Amino acid sequence: MPVYHAPTKDMLFVLDEVLKTAEAGIEGYEDLDRETLQAILDEAGKLAENVLAPLNKVGDEQGCSLENGVVRTPEGFREAFDQMRDGGWTALDCDPEYGGQGLPYLVSTAVGEMFSSANMAFNMYPGLTHGAYNAIHAHGSAEQKATYLPKMVTCEWGGTMNLTEPHCGTDLGLIRTKAEPQDDGSYKITGNKIWISAGEHDMCDNIIHLVLAKIPGGPDGIKGISLFIVPKFLVNEDGSLGERNALSCGGLEEKMGIHGNATCVMNYDGAKGFLIGEMHKGMRAMFTMMNEARLGVGLQGYAQGEVAYQNALGFARDRLQGRDVTGVKNPEGPADPIIVHPDVRRNLMHQKSFVEGARAFTFWGASMIDRAHRNEDAAAEGLISLLTPVIKGFLTDKGFDTAVLAQQTLGGSGFTREWGLEQFVRDARITMIYEGTNGIQSLDLVGRKLGQDGGKHVMAFFDMVKDFIKETKGQDEAFDRDFLDPLKLASKDLQQAGMYFMQNGMKNPNNALSGSYDFMHLFGHVCLGLMWAKMGLAAKAAIEGGASDDFYAAKLATGRYYMARQLPATAMHLKRIESGAETVMELDAANF
Amino acid sequence: MPVYHAPTKDMLFVLDEVLKTAEAGIEGYEDLDRETLQAILDEAGKLAENVLAPLNKVGDEQGCSLENGVVRTPEGFREAFDQMRDGGWTALDCDPEYGGQGLPYLVSTAVGEMFSSANMAFNMYPGLTHGAYNAIHAHGSAEQKATYLPKMVTCEWGGTMNLTEPHCGTDLGLIRTKAEPQDDGSYKITGNKIWISAGEHDMCDNIIHLVLAKIPGGPDGIKGISLFIVPKFLVNEDGSLGERNALSCGGLEEKMGIHGNATCVMNYDGAKGFLIGEMHKGMRAMFTMMNEARLGVGLQGYAQGEVAYQNALGFARDRLQGRDVTGVKNPEGPADPIIVHPDVRRNLMHQKSFVEGARAFTFWGASMIDRAHRNEDAAAEGLISLLTPVIKGFLTDKGFDTAVLAQQTLGGSGFTREWGLEQFVRDARITMIYEGTNGIQSLDLVGRKLGQDGGKHVMAFFDMVKDFIKETKGQDEAFDRDFLDPLKLASKDLQQAGMYFMQNGMKNPNNALSGSYDFMHLFGHVCLGLMWAKMGLAAKAAIEGGASDDFYAAKLATGRYYMARQLPATAMHLKRIESGAETVMELDAANF
Repeated sequence: MPVYHAPTKDMLFVLDEVLKTAEAGIEGYEDLDRETLQAILDEAGKLAENVLAPLNKVGDEQGCSLENGVVRTPEGFREAFDQMRDGGWTALDCDPEYGGQGLPYLVSTAVGEMFSSANMAFNMYPGLTHGAYNAIHAHGSAEQKATYLPKMVTCEWGGTMNLTEPHCGTDLGLIRTKAEPQDDGSYKITGNKIWISAGEHDMCDNIIHLVLAKIPGGPDGIKGISLFIVPKFLVNEDGSLGERNALSCGGLEEKMGIHGNATCVMNYDGAKGFLIGEMHKGMRAMFTMMNEARLGVGLQGYAQGEVAYQNALGFARDRLQGRDVTGVKNPEGPADPIIVHPDVRRNLMHQKSFVEGARAFTFWGASMIDRAHRNEDAAAEGLISLLTPVIKGFLTDKGFDTAVLAQQTLGGSGFTREWGLEQFVRDARITMIYEGTNGIQSLDLVGRKLGQDGGKHVMAFFDMVKDFIKETKGQDEAFDRDFLDPLKLASKDLQQAGMYFMQNGMKNPNNALSGSYDFMHLFGHVCLGLMWAKMGLAAKAAIEGGASDDFYAAKLATGRYYMARQLPATAMHLKRIESGAETVMELDAANF
Repeated sequence: MPVYHAPTKDMLFVLDEVLKTAEAGIEGYEDLDRETLQAILDEAGKLAENVLAPLNKVGDEQGCSLENGVVRTPEGFREAFDQMRDGGWTALDCDPEYGGQGLPYLVSTAVGEMFSSANMAFNMYPGLTHGAYNAIHAHGSAEQKATYLPKMVTCEWGGTMNLTEPHCGTDLGLIRTKAEPQDDGSYKITGNKIWISAGEHDMCDNIIHLVLAKIPGGPDGIKGISLFIVPKFLVNEDGSLGERNALSCGGLEEKMGIHGNATCVMNYDGAKGFLIGEMHKGMRAMFTMMNEARLGVGLQGYAQGEVAYQNALGFARDRLQGRDVTGVKNPEGPADPIIVHPDVRRNLMHQKSFVEGARAFTFWGASMIDRAHRNEDAAAEGLISLLTPVIKGFLTDKGFDTAVLAQQTLGGSGFTREWGLEQFVRDARITMIYEGTNGIQSLDLVGRKLGQDGGKHVMAFFDMVKDFIKETKGQDEAFDRDFLDPLKLASKDLQQAGMYFMQNGMKNPNNALSGSYDFMHLFGHVCLGLMWAKMGLAAKAAIEGGASDDFYAAKLATGRYYMARQLPATAMHLKRIESGAETVMELDAANF
């Protein structure tokens, strides 16, 4: 049976010592001192460890079932959801006007990592609700907000996002779901949606569906899409639940993982819907909260890596096989624990250095979102928009890889259900696909974000790296050699790749597009390199300040591993990018 | 529902045009002309496509069940096994003295790829039997061979390998299963074995277990291990089945994939066993056939990549989403097929260039095994021993990665059970673990094979690459630039890595061991680079010879992709290796 330990100490290090929350100058961060953060994270950790984690395997094994239109979630999910609601965990960063606690997004990000590591399938129910809350909060009328938000803050009512149809996922311009205007100002929604996470279940009194549909007569393609609120139960004027709307769950998807989450086919049979935001501006409304939603998926990716790593580490410390070639380490035992073996350590260090770097990157990204929203800081908004596809694409690819590496640490046991590692791999796999496949992320990065506002944001990123190196360099030779020099090299590779796109993408866009995926990974490595340099600096400061905790020395060692053994990937990605489109585009489709 | 098409054409290209079987000068290859090969592969392909592939999903969904000691395999498996037996497919490369067809191992390798792609879990039943056949054939007494082999050639009787126990897998010196000598010359076998593939099932009349056990009083550790034949039913002198032996299946493992194969807990409760080979030399006997067994697993790895790629390609040609940025390709349709998009192509080319390279490498390896055995060629034996861990480790890691990439091509559909891609991923995952984890392969490569016979074999490998480049260079500028120059660079990286180990491994073995995994991958890339250069040359020759088939131009284009976009990984692996052991070994186990 796998275990989960909330990594509170590492989170506090990132929040308090690297991001220095309380002094960061972001509105609402003043109160985020170490004690406050610790109190919140300790409580969240208890829920994650004691309530959510034990249900992870149950959810995987039982899955959800559909009978007569009713979806049953796995045993214990409902009670766990009640505990989550009662503890106020669904309301953390919601608007106090609707019953939220008004905490920064950063705090809910840290808590969200714990909940996702502990039970990703479960945490999608409040996660989707929060996404729908965000969209209504940003685009709903005052009346719509008053009607729906208070109950969604508490998760008494759930929420969903309905985009995909059987014939279209990425290319939403092709959707066929119809919204016909009615005399009372509402719309009649008719169509089929698939892959609707949490589309129907037994844990909420009502479910508020956000549905993309086309109003007949509107423009073709994505310019003719509008967004609608389509509640499972219509809401009476007094806020009580009224009649059942004409929508139903037509089936549950059988899938590789996240079995505890109901992935529904949703049928809208002339259901009553309410336009949210402007007519034909549905895509914009749906994607307003994109940065948060995609950061949330990047988080899920590395969060599965984290819990997988924890279990690999436990196994490597316990399992006795073979002897250390440089001298027996466990003379009383029949063999040494496998963590003595260099290749097992290489594997563990790879996992650890990724996960800790990813956490810092994600928390930093969440603080940028807070800075953008709370301080209305356009530069922060630009930077996080640029990096959102990197967070989503890179952290989910590597999060999955990390879970696979962790599984490998266990050898044959990693392949068995019993040890649970294989579930982390199966669950992590979806993060590379949903909320825009990672291929789409890379196109968003190279095709849209890179050139946005004249390339201002990517320039700001390079300046940030350059300034950091300039400010830090020359104080400590070893730190310069181990951290700053590799970071500089990697950043140069990234710049050169960007330059290649500028020089060759004009001639032929395929030169840029066929390098986009490698560019996303190259970018991700530079970001994690920067984070590791920042963390290394904070750890060094703590040690120089007299801290005796081994934690800081371990942090520096892990950072050195990242710089020495993960960053060399940047040169490979650059070389692939510079090989251009020719080998990618040459074959006719028929000759593959 | 996934499909499988036997890649007969590509196999014939490798066999007839690259390896030039009929003229290779290997005993028994004289008859392997194109027509003969085609006839065999066409028939094998039919069985794979029409009988085995349709059962792949059935096997995954139904799995095996254990009731009262009897294991039931999925519906249709038994009938399919009968067809396989009746067609003589289990006897291909077996000794004619015992009813085999005496064909080269290479032929059974090509056929094995088809069967593995079509249904890996199923093909493990004859596969394991073949492994046990090999061990008895190599080490059994004349009487043992006469008793067991004829029925194992036909797979009327199955076979298994019993190594692992709950407390030991890799470190077999720790095994506790006991073999007590009896007055009649037999042994009484007592112990528990786990993860025994095909340990018990309903498709064979008898199952011949090969069991590692310790004879009391023997040396400690692996030097005290002997190998025993322990049949499920004892065999009477007239060859008929006698009494049930005291062994049973105590449970089935629940696992991530290969559900159609029964992974058994085997209990030996004083079962009658017969020593095979010499006392205390069981490890040697078990591992005689290691090269073949590990090549077989490498094959399974890329074979899952192959079938996954086929299905990704089919999807990419059919699925309409978005438009080609350089101009609409399917003006009559609502969108273009996604194969027009550069990032989708990059993904497909990555899959294709790996799988075809892996096939050539594996077939070449199988021909080396034939050369070693049939021509008693020590150089070939040395070379294939060196490369066996590369074939196993690199091809299974990349085969799994390929299945994951293929799954990604399908977007959300890749995550559903319906499309079957997720099964290929789950099934492929085991190949990185069993028959020695890939970490163990890398240690075998760096710790044993590299220095074997004074480094003679690795020198022979480098000479082979150098000679090939020397013989080929200067005839065609484009070929030199696209194929030979990258191969030379990659080979140089490999040599430099070997040099690093020699110079630093002496001082501290951890410098070599913590680079072993990267070395295995670096080596794998050089091998596939060599294979692509050979295939490129053969394709060029065909085109120059007037062949008009697009196949050859596609082969060259795919090779160029490999050289431009996969080979750049070698420099990354070298850099990681040269960073040494320090960052890997620094942390105390407690500080991870």
